[in-house]
Amino acid sequence: MSDNTIQISSNEMEETLLNLFLKYNFSNEKAQLLASTYTESTLYGVFSHGINRVPLFIEYIENGSVKVDKEAEKVASFGSIERWDGHQGPGIINATKCTDRAIELAKEHGMGLVALRNNNHWMRGGSYARQAADAGCISILFTNTQPNMPPWGGKDSRTGNNPFVVSIPRKAGHVILDMAISQFAFGKINDYKLRGKKLPFPGGWDENDELSNDPERITLKERGLPIGYWKGSALSIILDMLATLLSAGDSTFRISQRPFETAVSQVFLCIYPGIFGDQDLQERLINEIIDYTHNVEPMHPEDRTYFPGERSSQTRVKYEKEGIPVSSKVWDKVMELVS
Amino acid sequence: MSDNTIQISSNEMEETLLNLFLKYNFSNEKAQLLASTYTESTLYGVFSHGINRVPLFIEYIENGSVKVDKEAEKVASFGSIERWDGHQGPGIINATKCTDRAIELAKEHGMGLVALRNNNHWMRGGSYARQAADAGCISILFTNTQPNMPPWGGKDSRTGNNPFVVSIPRKAGHVILDMAISQFAFGKINDYKLRGKKLPFPGGWDENDELSNDPERITLKERGLPIGYWKGSALSIILDMLATLLSAGDSTFRISQRPFETAVSQVFLCIYPGIFGDQDLQERLINEIIDYTHNVEPMHPEDRTYFPGERSSQTRVKYEKEGIPVSSKVWDKVMELVS
Repeated sequence: MSDNTIQISSNEMEETLLNLFLKYNFSNEKAQLLASTYTESTLYGVFSHGINRVPLFIEYIENGSVKVDKEAEKVASFGSIERWDGHQGPGIINATKCTDRAIELAKEHGMGLVALRNNNHWMRGGSYARQAADAGCISILFTNTQPNMPPWGGKDSRTGNNPFVVSIPRKAGHVILDMAISQFAFGKINDYKLRGKKLPFPGGWDENDELSNDPERITLKERGLPIGYWKGSALSIILDMLATLLSAGDSTFRISQRPFETAVSQVFLCIYPGIFGDQDLQERLINEIIDYTHNVEPMHPEDRTYFPGERSSQTRVKYEKEGIPVSSKVWDKVMELVS
Repeated sequence: MSDNTIQISSNEMEETLLNLFLKYNFSNEKAQLLASTYTESTLYGVFSHGINRVPLFIEYIENGSVKVDKEAEKVASFGSIERWDGHQGPGIINATKCTDRAIELAKEHGMGLVALRNNNHWMRGGSYARQAADAGCISILFTNTQPNMPPWGGKDSRTGNNPFVVSIPRKAGHVILDMAISQFAFGKINDYKLRGKKLPFPGGWDENDELSNDPERITLKERGLPIGYWKGSALSIILDMLATLLSAGDSTFRISQRPFETAVSQVFLCIYPGIFGDQDLQERLINEIIDYTHNVEPMHPEDRTYFPGERSSQTRVKYEKEGIPVSSKVWDKVMELVS
């Protein structure tokens, strides 16, 4: 990383954030959960939804979008499915609670689903995927967002990048897919812009409605490209529909009508594969797939293949050892907020 | 369509296929289900998994991959989840049966999941998505396949295009996403080749390991491009893992070791949103999303946006009225088989 970063240990980050959240009137337990989740997301290399996002989270508390004292509660249930209302509480706390509940339901019924409305941004979906996997559960999780991609053929952004997250528990390291439906996050596009580089592939539409890999031109209007063009556009729309109708919550359309991105809709689906009593076989089958897709000749000598979640786990090991390279500007801002 | 096609009515197609399947020793009920499913897929415009696929289906019966007299049966269950074995019976018949069972489980528990191993190709996943939606259920369905795309960074095809299918029931027409994880199906790439056209976007790797939109060069080695590059590669791998471990069935790796694509693994997940008793609200929320993403200024004057499944429904209306434009070569082959 550049010389604009400083190395912060995960302990120092977590302690600093704990003090910050206590200052903003969270209970000790909630402040601890927020601090550890933001730190862990940063450890896994997801700065945009880790430490870099903390100042915006505080801003959202101050503008009233995030309600410090609110918490998700159940509003309806039937068998393995429940509908919850997040009451615009902190996204991480509500999402953690709903994941816990989906895990409980899965252990009771084989599967469990919690649909959550009126939540705030859950930050890194992989947090809850890992939480489920640690409890021995498969998880399929998704959220809607504010609009940031045009539906295929349309001019304006009217569909969200709606992250889609899947985890599979595994003794030798969980398999975790944490994927927004946009080809590149706008955070990533801005990184390329700052470094004066082009994207490796088209990532959005320029001011002349042409697909572009030029971050300068894509960021003039925020119109991201869905993965697979028309396919990701359709996938994004259908995830918004599922989250909205299952939670009876707000769709990307309704979210777009507010000044801040709040009251989003999310789905937490857990499956407990332990019910079959053949975890050893399952582990062997998963490892076979990993071996087959790993032990492949690289397309170009510098290439390597990874299984979903492998690289972020490597990043974590590195950062635990060497400290986390945090932007000085971000760290200064956090220190200013905490003081 | 070109002058190499003839117009066949859906009735004529279904009757012809019924006679064909009866000739191949299917019971009356099974022959009827196969005939109507192949015909319906063709009506929805999916020729590759409709009428065009029938000769290959017969070939698979003759080479022993599809076992005419075998049928899926339950091998394990817990709460809302069941594991079934397809015993290499006909893919359409087993998939229809498992969808029916997932619907039943959903109505009992809110959700139901059937994981099916040792099935044959289910043809068009949208058939079962529509079956679930007709019964008032949301469905999330996927299957693994033989390898046809390189895992990101790898040289050889070692992951499948693993179709991923979602349906949402709706009075004014179901919303149905039926999407392979490849950017273009090889059937589609071949269509471009026959017409001497380039693909509109890269669709696979050429003989020099470069991404290409030239169908001639992509078809030299069958190495398709996943949607979203590394993202679709990861999604494809994780769908294979889910289908394999839930069914304790064969992964793309194991499927690749047989001369024919058979004994694939599939997942049928249904959710019954009727449990909330607010179908009118749900319909309104879905329609709001459709309106928002439809009523958008087109990016280019000739563009239009569609909701998932809208275009195939329009195709069906057209073909019901005008007849289905079937390739003469394909129809001749079917007539030869039936006689």
